[in-house]
Amino acid sequence: MNKNRMEAFSDGVFAIIITIMVLELKVPHSTDFSSLKPLIPIFFSYVLSFIYLGIYWNNHHHMLHTVKKVSGGTLWANLHLLFWLSLIPFVTGWMGENNFAATPLALYGINLLMAAVAYYLLQRVILRNHGRESILAKAIGVDLKGKMSPVLYIIAILSTFVNDWIAGAIYVLVALIWLIPDRRIEKTLITE
Amino acid sequence: MNKNRMEAFSDGVFAIIITIMVLELKVPHSTDFSSLKPLIPIFFSYVLSFIYLGIYWNNHHHMLHTVKKVSGGTLWANLHLLFWLSLIPFVTGWMGENNFAATPLALYGINLLMAAVAYYLLQRVILRNHGRESILAKAIGVDLKGKMSPVLYIIAILSTFVNDWIAGAIYVLVALIWLIPDRRIEKTLITE
Amino acid sequence: MNKNRMEAFSDGVFAIIITIMVLELKVPHSTDFSSLKPLIPIFFSYVLSFIYLGIYWNNHHHMLHTVKKVSGGTLWANLHLLFWLSLIPFVTGWMGENNFAATPLALYGINLLMAAVAYYLLQRVILRNHGRESILAKAIGVDLKGKMSPVLYIIAILSTFVNDWIAGAIYVLVALIWLIPDRRIEKTLITE
Amino acid sequence: MNKNRMEAFSDGVFAIIITIMVLELKVPHSTDFSSLKPLIPIFFSYVLSFIYLGIYWNNHHHMLHTVKKVSGGTLWANLHLLFWLSLIPFVTGWMGENNFAATPLALYGINLLMAAVAYYLLQRVILRNHGRESILAKAIGVDLKGKMSPVLYIIAILSTFVNDWIAGAIYVLVALIWLIPDRRIEKTLITE
Repeated sequence: MNKNRMEAFSDGVFAIIITIMVLELKVPHSTDFSSLKPLIPIFFSYVLSFIYLGIYWNNHHHMLHTVKKVSGGTLWANLHLLFWLSLIPFVTGWMGENNFAATPLALYGINLLMAAVAYYLLQRVILRNHGRESILAKAIGVDLKGKMSPVLYIIAILSTFVNDWIAGAIYVLVALIWLIPDRRIEKTLITE
Repeated sequence: MNKNRMEAFSDGVFAIIITIMVLELKVPHSTDFSSLKPLIPIFFSYVLSFIYLGIYWNNHHHMLHTVKKVSGGTLWANLHLLFWLSLIPFVTGWMGENNFAATPLALYGINLLMAAVAYYLLQRVILRNHGRESILAKAIGVDLKGKMSPVLYIIAILSTFVNDWIAGAIYVLVALIWLIPDRRIEKTLITE
Repeated sequence: MNKNRMEAFSDGVFAIIITIMVLELKVPHSTDFSSLKPLIPIFFSYVLSFIYLGIYWNNHHHMLHTVKKVSGGTLWANLHLLFWLSLIPFVTGWMGENNFAATPLALYGINLLMAAVAYYLLQRVILRNHGRESILAKAIGVDLKGKMSPVLYIIAILSTFVNDWIAGAIYVLVALIWLIPDRRIEKTLITE
Repeated sequence: MNKNRMEAFSDGVFAIIITIMVLELKVPHSTDFSSLKPLIPIFFSYVLSFIYLGIYWNNHHHMLHTVKKVSGGTLWANLHLLFWLSLIPFVTGWMGENNFAATPLALYGINLLMAAVAYYLLQRVILRNHGRESILAKAIGVDLKGKMSPVLYIIAILSTFVNDWIAGAIYVLVALIWLIPDRRIEKTLITE
């Protein structure tokens, strides 16, 4: 019962974060197609963040699916994750409106890094409550993706000192890594 | 259980999309009725998009009602649909603020077309998981409306090259086609 | 099951409508208490609309509590109600920012009237599906409040031609009439 | 059933309040890190209010967990709490944009005080419906935190007449008091 309400609240926050990002796409005043041109980088930054939030929602969904006990620590670890995700619209807007300039790209990476750390902490709290032999522990396994992502974010952040494109490419790459379905986890987690 | 959370998240996104559109109706500074006049096209574009989102929510509701298995593919096909629907407030605002000019009308049609394609893909993914003999497959049947709508959207988009009114008329027509209750589907789907 | 999702969607829309109204309270640029003065009428219009939306949510909640069958007609009658309620933030903002001037006051009344009509239609659709002998039919009874409110709104709208204060007083009066708990209905509806 | 919908509606409002606060973080126009500097006090005011809303959500969650009967009075006491919480984004924005000046700090405290009073009233209504011997009554116990907080808020509000820092320090202190897990309550309330 506890768990349901934590899921409902998280779903609400996810739904709002993912939707208010579109408010950065300001309606242009002229009516020709060329007036949409300055919106193109904003649109692409929106697509990228939409996919990242979709991935987080998907993983959050799968992780909580097997959770049985929700402690006070879990609620706060979850709020901590939602806090960093709530900043995604801001960093997305800064990055998109400045055509993926170096500093906004770095800040975007820092935000993704903090969200990844927050997700990891939430996972630890849940695992601690359930024990090493739980379905969740087995499903997570070595968690290669979860361990690789922060490393890639750090490389992306540092790369903005030398080049503007590497970071963008890495963010797309990490999104693709997560998008590729991980059949093994799905088989363990989803009851069919 | 999986399904409930996908529905809850979708409901949240639908509710936010349908409500933030009203923010395009900016409060006028003077207090006479004539100051509402420039808002009339924005109001009508709002009504049209409200009805479209209502139709999507209704159909989404009915389709998921019979769904039993939710795979990772279903979650992503659903997010893909929500992505295109999340752009409706933007194209609605552009169309309404420019008094249904040709280019915004065309972009509105492109958005409706992409949403229709996304809905079709979601239907395919769900049908593939459930098999041709499922209640859902029977309820959908030949799906005349679903096949006709994209064709009408394409005609509308192309018509904006020659005339500003045809496209608007077609969007209203498609909305009416969907509004007319489809008794057969309802009888198959709703448990009474 | 159907019903749950209609409730969840409605709750989402109610929650967003009630919350985005607060965005009309724009943060002032100076830091003294007197800079809050121009916000006072906006604040009072917010309080009034918050109470109206609270009343609608409460009544919606009680009405749907006893509903067993949800037809396509019910879903659309519900969307129709939500449409008129979604305009409340706009008319509230216009009324508040113009210090309860006559025309915005009249428009506010028109919006309340349309919402009351939409609520009445929703009630009819639900009653038609459940029959005159249902718990709902008994609980609603003669529905004095529901019949009186539209009459009072019409008087308020007309009164704005002669005086600015009568309409405001009537809106407060109607809110108070609904706020006074109706023990009889509650006894019939709430399972204790 | 009643209770579920009140929880769902409250979760929606909590989720929106907590998320729209981030809209105060306006995207800067230049791309260097120094352009983020004016956002620092806004960011900290956001963090503080995020934690306060998290605490309220957590406590609301725990309190309603044991609730069995939801009366009309409970629904209104709950709406009254949500009303004061809905003003948090406004006072947070005013405080953050003015670098924690005295008057906005005082108004922030007044808002926290009103929310605390509203929470207390909600608790009384629920306790009255459940009786002194209920699990809830036992779990709340002497409710030292709940009684201390309003006193601290009043001290903070008064302190803004003499010094700008005391109030800010007190708001942080109260948040910390609530963040420290209260093992005893959790043991009584959470079913493990």
